Amino acid sequence: MTVARTVELEGHIIDSGMMQRCFGVVMDLGGNFDVEVFDVGKHKDEESYCRMLVTADDEESLREILHELHQSGAHLPDPPDATLEPAPANQVVPHGFYSTTNHPTQVRYDGEWLPVENVEMDCAIVVDPDADGGARAYTKVLNAIDGGDLVVTDEAGVRVDPPERPRDSNSPFGFMQGGVSAERPSESLIREIADAIEETKADGGSVLAVAGPAVVHSGAGDALARLVREGYVDMLSAGNGFAVHDLERGQYGTSLGMDVETLESPRKGHKHHIYTISEIIRAGGIEEAVEQGLVEEGVMYECVENDVPYILAGSIRDDGPLPDTITDSVEAQNAIREQAHEADLVVMLSTLLHSVAVGNCLPSTTRVVCVDINPATVTQLLDRGSAQAIGMVTDVGTFVPTLADQILDES
Amino acid sequence: MTVARTVELEGHIIDSGMMQRCFGVVMDLGGNFDVEVFDVGKHKDEESYCRMLVTADDEESLREILHELHQSGAHLPDPPDATLEPAPANQVVPHGFYSTTNHPTQVRYDGEWLPVENVEMDCAIVVDPDADGGARAYTKVLNAIDGGDLVVTDEAGVRVDPPERPRDSNSPFGFMQGGVSAERPSESLIREIADAIEETKADGGSVLAVAGPAVVHSGAGDALARLVREGYVDMLSAGNGFAVHDLERGQYGTSLGMDVETLESPRKGHKHHIYTISEIIRAGGIEEAVEQGLVEEGVMYECVENDVPYILAGSIRDDGPLPDTITDSVEAQNAIREQAHEADLVVMLSTLLHSVAVGNCLPSTTRVVCVDINPATVTQLLDRGSAQAIGMVTDVGTFVPTLADQILDES
Amino acid sequence: MTVARTVELEGHIIDSGMMQRCFGVVMDLGGNFDVEVFDVGKHKDEESYCRMLVTADDEESLREILHELHQSGAHLPDPPDATLEPAPANQVVPHGFYSTTNHPTQVRYDGEWLPVENVEMDCAIVVDPDADGGARAYTKVLNAIDGGDLVVTDEAGVRVDPPERPRDSNSPFGFMQGGVSAERPSESLIREIADAIEETKADGGSVLAVAGPAVVHSGAGDALARLVREGYVDMLSAGNGFAVHDLERGQYGTSLGMDVETLESPRKGHKHHIYTISEIIRAGGIEEAVEQGLVEEGVMYECVENDVPYILAGSIRDDGPLPDTITDSVEAQNAIREQAHEADLVVMLSTLLHSVAVGNCLPSTTRVVCVDINPATVTQLLDRGSAQAIGMVTDVGTFVPTLADQILDES
Amino acid sequence: MTVARTVELEGHIIDSGMMQRCFGVVMDLGGNFDVEVFDVGKHKDEESYCRMLVTADDEESLREILHELHQSGAHLPDPPDATLEPAPANQVVPHGFYSTTNHPTQVRYDGEWLPVENVEMDCAIVVDPDADGGARAYTKVLNAIDGGDLVVTDEAGVRVDPPERPRDSNSPFGFMQGGVSAERPSESLIREIADAIEETKADGGSVLAVAGPAVVHSGAGDALARLVREGYVDMLSAGNGFAVHDLERGQYGTSLGMDVETLESPRKGHKHHIYTISEIIRAGGIEEAVEQGLVEEGVMYECVENDVPYILAGSIRDDGPLPDTITDSVEAQNAIREQAHEADLVVMLSTLLHSVAVGNCLPSTTRVVCVDINPATVTQLLDRGSAQAIGMVTDVGTFVPTLADQILDES
Repeated sequence: MTVARTVELEGHIIDSGMMQRCFGVVMDLGGNFDVEVFDVGKHKDEESYCRMLVTADDEESLREILHELHQSGAHLPDPPDATLEPAPANQVVPHGFYSTTNHPTQVRYDGEWLPVENVEMDCAIVVDPDADGGARAYTKVLNAIDGGDLVVTDEAGVRVDPPERPRDSNSPFGFMQGGVSAERPSESLIREIADAIEETKADGGSVLAVAGPAVVHSGAGDALARLVREGYVDMLSAGNGFAVHDLERGQYGTSLGMDVETLESPRKGHKHHIYTISEIIRAGGIEEAVEQGLVEEGVMYECVENDVPYILAGSIRDDGPLPDTITDSVEAQNAIREQAHEADLVVMLSTLLHSVAVGNCLPSTTRVVCVDINPATVTQLLDRGSAQAIGMVTDVGTFVPTLADQILDES
Repeated sequence: MTVARTVELEGHIIDSGMMQRCFGVVMDLGGNFDVEVFDVGKHKDEESYCRMLVTADDEESLREILHELHQSGAHLPDPPDATLEPAPANQVVPHGFYSTTNHPTQVRYDGEWLPVENVEMDCAIVVDPDADGGARAYTKVLNAIDGGDLVVTDEAGVRVDPPERPRDSNSPFGFMQGGVSAERPSESLIREIADAIEETKADGGSVLAVAGPAVVHSGAGDALARLVREGYVDMLSAGNGFAVHDLERGQYGTSLGMDVETLESPRKGHKHHIYTISEIIRAGGIEEAVEQGLVEEGVMYECVENDVPYILAGSIRDDGPLPDTITDSVEAQNAIREQAHEADLVVMLSTLLHSVAVGNCLPSTTRVVCVDINPATVTQLLDRGSAQAIGMVTDVGTFVPTLADQILDES
Repeated sequence: MTVARTVELEGHIIDSGMMQRCFGVVMDLGGNFDVEVFDVGKHKDEESYCRMLVTADDEESLREILHELHQSGAHLPDPPDATLEPAPANQVVPHGFYSTTNHPTQVRYDGEWLPVENVEMDCAIVVDPDADGGARAYTKVLNAIDGGDLVVTDEAGVRVDPPERPRDSNSPFGFMQGGVSAERPSESLIREIADAIEETKADGGSVLAVAGPAVVHSGAGDALARLVREGYVDMLSAGNGFAVHDLERGQYGTSLGMDVETLESPRKGHKHHIYTISEIIRAGGIEEAVEQGLVEEGVMYECVENDVPYILAGSIRDDGPLPDTITDSVEAQNAIREQAHEADLVVMLSTLLHSVAVGNCLPSTTRVVCVDINPATVTQLLDRGSAQAIGMVTDVGTFVPTLADQILDES
Repeated sequence: MTVARTVELEGHIIDSGMMQRCFGVVMDLGGNFDVEVFDVGKHKDEESYCRMLVTADDEESLREILHELHQSGAHLPDPPDATLEPAPANQVVPHGFYSTTNHPTQVRYDGEWLPVENVEMDCAIVVDPDADGGARAYTKVLNAIDGGDLVVTDEAGVRVDPPERPRDSNSPFGFMQGGVSAERPSESLIREIADAIEETKADGGSVLAVAGPAVVHSGAGDALARLVREGYVDMLSAGNGFAVHDLERGQYGTSLGMDVETLESPRKGHKHHIYTISEIIRAGGIEEAVEQGLVEEGVMYECVENDVPYILAGSIRDDGPLPDTITDSVEAQNAIREQAHEADLVVMLSTLLHSVAVGNCLPSTTRVVCVDINPATVTQLLDRGSAQAIGMVTDVGTFVPTLADQILDES
């Protein structure tokens, strides 16, 4: 058995995004809609009108949907008067009081729409029926409520008008609207990313890891190596720097000269990376160095041992470079392109350069996870029309170990 | 005389945002539309169909509009075959070649739609009519073009399918789509902000400046003082710190002990701010200090001299505080609220705390300009549903002087 | 049995910091020094001279110390000629080759000091004895080495001149020198912080946690609550926002309307925080709400249950505020001051405002740990002459749970 | 005629940096010193002692120097008692009151050193001679001063003990001390950078500009082109992206599709950059495109016209690339290396990749100016032991025009 209610949308409901938002609300909250009337504004100056029947499984769900539709500007036909309840004490509002948005708002009182004065978000609305010049409605913050104030509760009889997109596209003033908030719980999100990797593998898909040197510096190299060894990384895309620091770890136990476990910095360590390069050149390459027993652990080691193909793309800030590094950028792009086209899920770890290079080759349908401690990097990487993306602003040094634990320690 | 063309939209065109985007494109580019058929998907699983006639003033404008509609997924009824032209030489594409998006794409060849293989943005599309198993179409980057390759030019016969918003709202994978790019030309944008301030004043409106201490440290205090003196700032909202550093400038020529003009840091200067506070307390307040000739320049001085009301809200990091500072946060909020409700344009300069406090009190219809060197601050401040906002990631130390020059030196 | 070697320092060795660096090197690496001669430059234009005997436990340690002293500009009396070895092949350097710094360098050849040409870091030095005009020494990057090149190995006969501090303090050009690198392994560093907390408790000391709302949004609230419950947090300093979001979690399972475990965002959730405030006001305060069973988990709950004193300082961006919030900033500072003076270790978690307020009250001898995802916040908080500080740029949402696990799951 | 005063330093004055700081203070403030006694701590556990005569031109300068030495821990032999003055009123301190640091402090009272209780920065010190158990000294914030409190004025009889560098190098707790503050007045600093460029040119030196694409996006291309045309840039180091966007501006008046003057974004503009590349490839290169009249303005145009050599280094994120781009990273490094070795002043503008590549090749004696809106980029670039560096966190879109105006509009 389902419950239903009719709602109306009016105005520039398409180009303001109102209609899209309302359809989205219903779908997100598990409801259904049936469009009964739709008069589209035929020209850009004409308003549209839509009446739809919204259905949900139970009253509770329906109320949630209606609440959200209401915030988005939809309203009920034949609205009743707003419900008013006296505040029980100073600073105390009635249960279920209406909490305002920052959009222009009206409340229905005695069959008339009163504009709410001093609109401001997170306030209560107080109606004063006996004001000079007739009834008035205005906002009050919680700490300004006086006992006895007539406070609007519930949403019945309240109408919100979210601002429309400005028509004049030459105005520098833009429409800013609730983007993705950076504030999301880290561990739960890592759990979801772990699930996505496991699903991809279960479906026979390919996971491409794109990794920057910070993965090694931040102490996450071991965790990434585990994921490679256990088969959760099918391809690796990185640069000369990543490989050098990983191999330095495998040879000297340091990354850029710092022991990543004891935090001690053997002073001579700053020469380790250049010595590492020199040794790998002498050996003839990474695979040869592994075969010769020069390198016995780390991400590159696991790639060699587990036949995980890797691409090391050269850059002008490289030391060395290693013999494995593709120094020509066009050649490197071609190699990256091939990997990108094979990937079903791409996990970008703390590297802007390599992530952009991979991202440039991806269709908008490939799933992408992008992790960086710099929010600007995450924004730049995901601001490309990717349809299936997770951006996470976090520390790769805790992210990869937590991810590896969640994938490997539970099965 | 106008020119017109019919286009079609199909699929989940409302909740994917496609329709809103298409309406927006037409309006932004100065065209007009006439919706001829609109079959809305009545349930969330049904697709919609829209046919509309797009009109523009001339062929050139129409072509631009059609190009954009095309990128957004609209297509022409009765599509022709794609136009193919041979590449004149290696790495050289024909004029007007079709440059790909990263969305799934098809090209029409010999009356059939061929899927474009290896979709990737900014590529050319090459059609190979003689491939094994029939004609094929695929992307090629510019540097891979061979002379003689049959390259698609123009948009006729090309169809793009931008990804739809994922229906399953429980997926952590979100829909990331071209947000506001941070990369905008600074001086032109400042010119537009200057225009907005001048317009507000010309319309008899009120400009509220919200300023942080960085305005003074970065050497922009004089420019802000000029704007106050010349009547372009009607109200000031700041904190104890801003006022102290501005008054320190007015008394000692330093801000936090550094001479903002010579960059010299008279070593004893770090005591100036605490001495400044002590002197203002002794005088009885800022107005008294100005009257007693203790302070003879600066933003606070100009506010006093020009009867520009200011609010200094206290915070737990204040030194002193000055007698003018409202130390109770509820009282301070009330004062901020009143200013906010009177403002027609709010210019937020390098302060997260005070800007959030003011922003909390603003209806979504008030124009807001937000300037900060930290992109996260700009994002946080504008991510609240403001309908009329400009965010600018720049250096307030060059922003305010440039703004003042543009407003004051031209009239 | 110890080994020893004499080294010399010459020039502006004090005001360039060379002497301090050299003393530090010896101490850091476990050696000892005995100053044999010290002629201090009496005026600012005179150079100084220092000769000291450096002692270490074994040859290996001594070599490391000498290597570091050498990099810092110290040299051996009676230097030998540099050791030269032919490169075994193209791009392959001899074992133990000398890897350059970016400072002016000389090599001793045939009893003469040759300046090294084209100084650049991470290169080999090649000596060409048969150059026109006599022997020359120059840098070569690894990939430019030709088989047979005479490459300098070891440090004997190499002299480095680190730049001195510019004397002219009016120059805007400053002396930038290896600061604390941001790139440190995250999990090891958290281990060290856990140790510091445990030590503090073992010594009967007091741990003060300063927490921002991001602790709750990022899902770290439970972990912090555990630390409070288990006695590892003795005092809490936070703001109204932190408490509201923590209490919202405790009442509705959401923070700012998002379920921090399932990531689902019950749409109506954005009203939860204002409803939470309203309920706590109705109850009369946090303690009362806990007693009435309104709140049954979370950081504030554990503080009440475990008699951990908390200070909630008000700010102008607060909603509500809660009855417990100290709205007057001077009063709040006084409360913060008392806590700060009692603390032996302060852990600052993702809040600039409250951390600055606490930091302002701390003597430079109190240990401070500062954690934030924004490097600018960490820099600002620690740039105050604190003698005992750890700054960590990481995600508080993974930091606190990892810290809690390390402290609580091992004992 | 000069004035002089004897001061003493005691303790671990070398390895704590105290001596270096004191020498620096005297030099920075234009004074002179004569070391009379210097007993160096011979072992790492022994303390040192230094007595020196400090000379200055006048009493005012000497006082400033002594103030700074005092803050750094130096003290006068035969210290007098501290000067005490009663506070004239509540919250009002006597003129010249002593404002505290956050270091352990003592005041001399009645011939004895009293430890100052509750040490905290920016406070007054109050002495209570009649406390139980004898005289006590403690800090008071300004707002806590009571009329009649005996407040310490001046520095005589006050002793400060700045913390020493922790000896145990294995502690994760580090010594954080006043770094370069980010808060410097922007326009004055740009004035100093303009001076440095002019000086370099006047001395016959070479200026190397390293430029990222943001220079063009932010609208600063014209200003940089002017500087090239007028001879203030001798060499250019950039990437394919910079050149493409600059040439796009020169061909279409847009950068990445946005008109940098009108801010209008001709919708089709996003294809301009790929069309630009295609046209330059067709022409055969940048120089050819200029000769053929295809490009008539911009930075690359001015480089060609004025014989300013440029290097375009390839990277894996390039579109195209242009025929002028050096795609092999080793080859590109060699070209960069040559430029770097010739440069006397390097100005790095908004590019991490290219700036690191150039910086890797510079000796520590070359002057470097580094400008970026991201503080982490500036820190990373200057954290390499450069002796002559200016870092500026600002908007390159206002920086370059302001710089060009200051250099070109005044001569």
